[in-house]
Amino acid sequence: MTMRTPERLYINDVAPRDGFQNESTFIPTEQKIAIINQLSRCGLAKIEATSFTSPRAIPALADAEAVMHQIDRAPGVVYTALVPNVRGAERALECALDELNVVMSVSETHNQANLRMPREKSFAQLSDVIAMAAAHKAPVNVSLSTVFGCPMEGPIAEDDVYAWMDRYAALGVGGITLCDTTGMANPAQVARIAGAAIARFPGLDITLHFHNTRGMALANALAAIEAGIVRFDASLGGLGGCPYAPGATGNACTEDLVHMFEQMGIDTGVDLQALLAVAGQLPAVLGHDVPSQVLKAGTSDRRYPAPF
Amino acid sequence: MTMRTPERLYINDVAPRDGFQNESTFIPTEQKIAIINQLSRCGLAKIEATSFTSPRAIPALADAEAVMHQIDRAPGVVYTALVPNVRGAERALECALDELNVVMSVSETHNQANLRMPREKSFAQLSDVIAMAAAHKAPVNVSLSTVFGCPMEGPIAEDDVYAWMDRYAALGVGGITLCDTTGMANPAQVARIAGAAIARFPGLDITLHFHNTRGMALANALAAIEAGIVRFDASLGGLGGCPYAPGATGNACTEDLVHMFEQMGIDTGVDLQALLAVAGQLPAVLGHDVPSQVLKAGTSDRRYPAPF
Repeated sequence: MTMRTPERLYINDVAPRDGFQNESTFIPTEQKIAIINQLSRCGLAKIEATSFTSPRAIPALADAEAVMHQIDRAPGVVYTALVPNVRGAERALECALDELNVVMSVSETHNQANLRMPREKSFAQLSDVIAMAAAHKAPVNVSLSTVFGCPMEGPIAEDDVYAWMDRYAALGVGGITLCDTTGMANPAQVARIAGAAIARFPGLDITLHFHNTRGMALANALAAIEAGIVRFDASLGGLGGCPYAPGATGNACTEDLVHMFEQMGIDTGVDLQALLAVAGQLPAVLGHDVPSQVLKAGTSDRRYPAPF
Repeated sequence: MTMRTPERLYINDVAPRDGFQNESTFIPTEQKIAIINQLSRCGLAKIEATSFTSPRAIPALADAEAVMHQIDRAPGVVYTALVPNVRGAERALECALDELNVVMSVSETHNQANLRMPREKSFAQLSDVIAMAAAHKAPVNVSLSTVFGCPMEGPIAEDDVYAWMDRYAALGVGGITLCDTTGMANPAQVARIAGAAIARFPGLDITLHFHNTRGMALANALAAIEAGIVRFDASLGGLGGCPYAPGATGNACTEDLVHMFEQMGIDTGVDLQALLAVAGQLPAVLGHDVPSQVLKAGTSDRRYPAPF
């Protein structure tokens, strides 16, 4: 049986934003820049480099301007950043981001918990961001949280997901990321929702964002490519905590995801050895181990001498 | 897109053999019995309860007879054990095992490293075991190691795998387990080999055995069910080390595997909550943390109160 697989995948590394944001100690700006610069040479399609949230709300990324002004931007890499509101959009546009990534949750409760406002207020606020970006011809991606389930509300009606996608598509965004924010997605659900999203929005770049909370990140990614998805968020080292699953691992790990797909013969564009060299610096930079499996075990091509 | 999934899966928990064998401290016989007795009430199709290897070779499982004589054998559960040779078969048959599981590697180098003899000598020895089992009408399963790659030789020719399967099928075994001994398999390879094995051996029970060394165990299991596989080995807590991938996780974790498939709406026969209750005892019994993810994060159905 031959699996139908895509020829080429496009990987967005979110560690500099989603990962570093969740670290308990501030990562010095020059270390952030060094890691982003190395990631820029790994063949990633996109890097979520920082967040233009209020420095009071997320002090870990208070150096967004410094990071964006000092990194070496590689040709062909899309540099994106999280933008929560018009003030953030102004800051992002001043930094000439290639893309603005706006975020809201499809779960009312999670939106309230995470963004401290109802979904409709988020939508209004993000609509202003999208309008401002359009005026500057800056592409916008929308990341929808809790698409595959909310840790407080439980299952999310799939029609609600498509309805929110409809509203953002109508505003002219270029892409939508479907986020499994707390690792509740399963492969059958991913196949269903990803397939429906692709069929309904042929003009949009659909990205999938998984967490490995319950060990299913790579299985979900496999289900996604079988449904036709070619774009993934992932995080170097598997960084990125989840406040609703203590002790659990974080985002899908970029090197584990790339390793699986490259082993399957799929071109991810990524130089895995270069990526592993960057990931290998994380424990020293962060002061703790990271969930990455391939970093520990080596690639499947690793050989051992016979013990005789 | 709707994923084609089987209605029912059959799970073999190998932790009492493959897991306990790899622990550095001896697990008291009564604790082994207590765990097996609890596993027997979880709805597992099969339990690999121990090994009839020489007690000198594997002291961790030197209590095979005591375990088999003292456990409560649940109706409907197949109790299997690893049997390396005719002496082991005699011991296993005295204990009235439901099945004898014989093991060899399809890699010559791995067979030498693991079993200290060439493959042909293993085949001759296991042929004697199979003949003895047949005389006692005891079913035999063959576990073929390194089917998806050898950590010393590298890739294994797929035709060699089918050739070894042919030889064992000709001896009348009831089932063959294809083992990804050191976590080298990828989903495209699994789909191809599992599909070919099912097509070639319609009368055999084909089981897949994955390790999560590089994070792909659940993705490989997903690829396997899409290829038509309905039988899996897995290990409670994810126990079971791998000497050729230091620091890496072990076998596919039973509760993580069951959780994924149950979330997908597939009947595994297993009572996941009961299984998690058994897995939750492992850290205290073994004196260390276990790789299980669902044990840490809870199931996808876990709910948290809204923080406002």
